[in-house]
Amino acid sequence: MKAVKVKTPNKNYKIVFKNSFDHLSKQIEKRGRDYSKILIISDSNVGPLYTEEVVAALSPLKVEVQWTFFAAGEANKNYETINGFYQYLIENHYDRKTLIVALGGGVTGDMAGFTAATYMRGVDFIQLPTSLLAQVDSSSGGKTGIDYNGYKNIVGAFYQPEMVYINTETLKTLPEIEFACGMGEALKHGFIRDKAYLDYMTHNSEQIKALDHEAIAKVIGRSCKIKASVVSEDEKELGIRAILNFGHTIGHAIERLMNFKLGHGQSIALGMVASIKLAVILGDLSEKNLHFTESLFTTYNLPITLDGLNVEDVYQQLFYDKKTKHNTINIVMLKSLGTCYQNKSLTGEQIKEGLGYILK
Amino acid sequence: MKAVKVKTPNKNYKIVFKNSFDHLSKQIEKRGRDYSKILIISDSNVGPLYTEEVVAALSPLKVEVQWTFFAAGEANKNYETINGFYQYLIENHYDRKTLIVALGGGVTGDMAGFTAATYMRGVDFIQLPTSLLAQVDSSSGGKTGIDYNGYKNIVGAFYQPEMVYINTETLKTLPEIEFACGMGEALKHGFIRDKAYLDYMTHNSEQIKALDHEAIAKVIGRSCKIKASVVSEDEKELGIRAILNFGHTIGHAIERLMNFKLGHGQSIALGMVASIKLAVILGDLSEKNLHFTESLFTTYNLPITLDGLNVEDVYQQLFYDKKTKHNTINIVMLKSLGTCYQNKSLTGEQIKEGLGYILK
Repeated sequence: MKAVKVKTPNKNYKIVFKNSFDHLSKQIEKRGRDYSKILIISDSNVGPLYTEEVVAALSPLKVEVQWTFFAAGEANKNYETINGFYQYLIENHYDRKTLIVALGGGVTGDMAGFTAATYMRGVDFIQLPTSLLAQVDSSSGGKTGIDYNGYKNIVGAFYQPEMVYINTETLKTLPEIEFACGMGEALKHGFIRDKAYLDYMTHNSEQIKALDHEAIAKVIGRSCKIKASVVSEDEKELGIRAILNFGHTIGHAIERLMNFKLGHGQSIALGMVASIKLAVILGDLSEKNLHFTESLFTTYNLPITLDGLNVEDVYQQLFYDKKTKHNTINIVMLKSLGTCYQNKSLTGEQIKEGLGYILK
Repeated sequence: MKAVKVKTPNKNYKIVFKNSFDHLSKQIEKRGRDYSKILIISDSNVGPLYTEEVVAALSPLKVEVQWTFFAAGEANKNYETINGFYQYLIENHYDRKTLIVALGGGVTGDMAGFTAATYMRGVDFIQLPTSLLAQVDSSSGGKTGIDYNGYKNIVGAFYQPEMVYINTETLKTLPEIEFACGMGEALKHGFIRDKAYLDYMTHNSEQIKALDHEAIAKVIGRSCKIKASVVSEDEKELGIRAILNFGHTIGHAIERLMNFKLGHGQSIALGMVASIKLAVILGDLSEKNLHFTESLFTTYNLPITLDGLNVEDVYQQLFYDKKTKHNTINIVMLKSLGTCYQNKSLTGEQIKEGLGYILK
């Protein structure tokens, strides 16, 4: 799989696809930057599995490498954890020529990235995503952040990594539920931009789920390409980038109301089903498209209905989404499978009908 | 005084000089941005003095304006205060089309700017600097940040305002000690880039100290121009911008060891005297230059010596400066009055001799 290039006004970088960490030093050296120290930030699940391997892979750089692990989980994606990183960096005399390595899933990448964005007004960082969700989506694009009082990513920065280095082998230790969550974002990319990619995921589900190298690398690469093309057009989500939020407005509301007990990929899968139901209501998609979606999500162990929340609560939560401007709910909608647009004129009744379809 | 333009890769903006807040709405409208709500962030000293006036000046925009004041002082420049702002923004449903107005001195600008840089990954902000220090220096250039565990600005971001609007009338309520601190930065600009500006401050000290409009506007404008030209060349302090740190490496160390009981301008004045003494030691400046400096600082009520700290403690603190890379102390030095360079090869002994000159 060829590297994917991401272009932004301040920084261009590559997403590289490998099946080991062996090429890490060489890839870092290619950037031609001079580092005084390297800090690996990881969580209590992933850190113990891969830190030794990553430290070994970094050794040719001849730069001191340290690591710090935080307790795994979205619940720790907060300023207390970030303060712990600042403390570690200060105590160990990390200067402006620091390289931070984010080793882990989306939570790790968001927090390590935000730490890099804000320590000494910005130091370099690279992403080593180990979850499918991070590999297909969150590790590229430069969104970093933390939650605050249950509001997801309400505090953060746009800050691009120096590189995203994907070692697909790490998926072998990924829990099944997290694999499903990653497929949620991958499917999203197909829904908004690429019907052929959706078909690929439909016809090759067995190989993909079995982590067949060729099949999974194709999924990751195709998703990264779609993401990179959108981010390159609009780094800071002023326009087109918002289409990446397909399923997210409703998904985030569900995530918050479920206190993050439901995974991100599962929440946005529900958001996508509700949005596709909405498109059926508008007459843009057919019942057949809706059933295709439900069957595809079921294949990848993603939920299509949810117990325990009521329509009114989810609807009210939509107004707390950080992308809600002027109290107008803006939902990314499909015109067809593979094309999308933003709809700001859905009525409360329509949205509630869409929500009613997934909430049992 | 004509507006000064600041150019950075992502954003160009103006510094405007007025003697009231009356033109504020018109200046904001010129940017052509659409805001949903405006939050004025100020402190307990400045907020009560000017908020009403600023709210009135913003009223032609027909956008809801709110305000929040924090307890004045560098001691509150921390994440607890910032979290209070996040909380306020979330509770009051501020969205991505928020405009934050920093009304106050350097601490207010740094914190309001950091809040703007990180709330929802970045919203717009403008600076209304009310202290001389903020007007001549900190309000332009895009440095935002907070202190952490006594380390000044160790957490922060480069994030440019939409505009800096300077109302020189606000200096009339400024405490004398803070006026002196502002002059410290103004003098710094003269020392690093503009001997004629130093001479102007030497020969017009009475008018400047009396806040004669023409004289003080000239000082602010000249400082802003020097600052803007340096920032436009190097937004993120990768090179030339570091010359703005003249007096700061030593000044920051003193500030930290004095627990911020000494003002920023006073601390950097001491740092400048020590650096000029160092230049005398190296043979670049004369004893006459040193005495000229001391006399100029005394005229503007800035300290030239300090009781209560010892040389070794200050020297050790230099290694904790966030600009210290690879444990190499990099001090901005003068070649002559008005020209400077960065010196990384000063010996510990030389630095200690410079420090010994100011520490009694």
